[in-house]
Amino acid sequence: MAATAIKTRARELLRPAAKLAADLGIPPTAITIAGLVLSGLAGWSLGTGHFPAAGVLLAVAGVCDMIDGAAARAGNRTSAAGAFLDSTIDRYSEMFVLLGALHYYLARSPGSPEVASAVAAFLALAGSFLVSYVRARAEAVGEECEIGLAERPERLVVLIAGALLGSGVFRIALWILVVLSHFTAIQRIRHVLRGVRA
Amino acid sequence: MAATAIKTRARELLRPAAKLAADLGIPPTAITIAGLVLSGLAGWSLGTGHFPAAGVLLAVAGVCDMIDGAAARAGNRTSAAGAFLDSTIDRYSEMFVLLGALHYYLARSPGSPEVASAVAAFLALAGSFLVSYVRARAEAVGEECEIGLAERPERLVVLIAGALLGSGVFRIALWILVVLSHFTAIQRIRHVLRGVRA
Repeated sequence: MAATAIKTRARELLRPAAKLAADLGIPPTAITIAGLVLSGLAGWSLGTGHFPAAGVLLAVAGVCDMIDGAAARAGNRTSAAGAFLDSTIDRYSEMFVLLGALHYYLARSPGSPEVASAVAAFLALAGSFLVSYVRARAEAVGEECEIGLAERPERLVVLIAGALLGSGVFRIALWILVVLSHFTAIQRIRHVLRGVRA
Repeated sequence: MAATAIKTRARELLRPAAKLAADLGIPPTAITIAGLVLSGLAGWSLGTGHFPAAGVLLAVAGVCDMIDGAAARAGNRTSAAGAFLDSTIDRYSEMFVLLGALHYYLARSPGSPEVASAVAAFLALAGSFLVSYVRARAEAVGEECEIGLAERPERLVVLIAGALLGSGVFRIALWILVVLSHFTAIQRIRHVLRGVRA
């Protein structure tokens, strides 16, 4: 699939950065936490209406997100604690970003489009969490679940593109995220049920 | 702990119901899905302002939630697929209930308290999902994580009590849920990190 090829290419492009972080002895969890802080700032930028700034912050947060695991592998510092923290902190990042979006639309003396956008932020949070939750539950019952249209990188790209293009487009991006994430959650549920029953 | 004693007592009280369901040959997943439908109706009741009805529906949904696993064990019908579906569907139930709450507060030509309550519904969703997500990720890396102040039964009791007492108290219940769920998520994260590092 094209999306997979792009992802592989992005990982290759970022490998030197991951290697550099490992060589400098930067702990992988510090990169994960930097991603969380940048996501928090992105959420704050969204909440205060600074959409292009939020797009840039999200892009840098996304880089942290993609290199923390690679840096851990390059420096032989992978651990169960690191993997656990990485994925848990990613969920907090999603929460802060979408909380900023919710706040932005609710703070504007809401009419119908703002209320709808706030509902979209809520549903996007639920969908994003479900995609990750289904995979975690699958792995807890011994199934792999690395499939699905909108994993975290795809979800981030939708948010980044929307934010860079301003609040009007961001609203559409939110709804795209709602559809993609819930579709992916259902894809994964079906995949896991087939796997478990086979 | 008192809460654990009450939970054990509730499970004992409900054991005959679970046994009956097993004897009647009702598939445990049908009970899980009945809980989802009841939660959807509870969310719809909240969204349309019928709080006491939502409280009753939530209570019955909670009973379904507590007996599906017990019915599976009583009828020797436990399975990885059932455990996976049970926990995944519980997350959809939480989403529908809190979506109803979000809609209720946003539909009332929002002033500050309504906007704050909508934010509470968002944060309660995030906190409830995080509590479950942290446990699932812990189990995926081979750790147990059955601890924490506000597991699903406690969260349900807060929502039921709030709904039965009407929209004013429900708003407070939402904020209690926000604090309890995020506190529990952090409790669990600390517990898992200690376990993984030991």
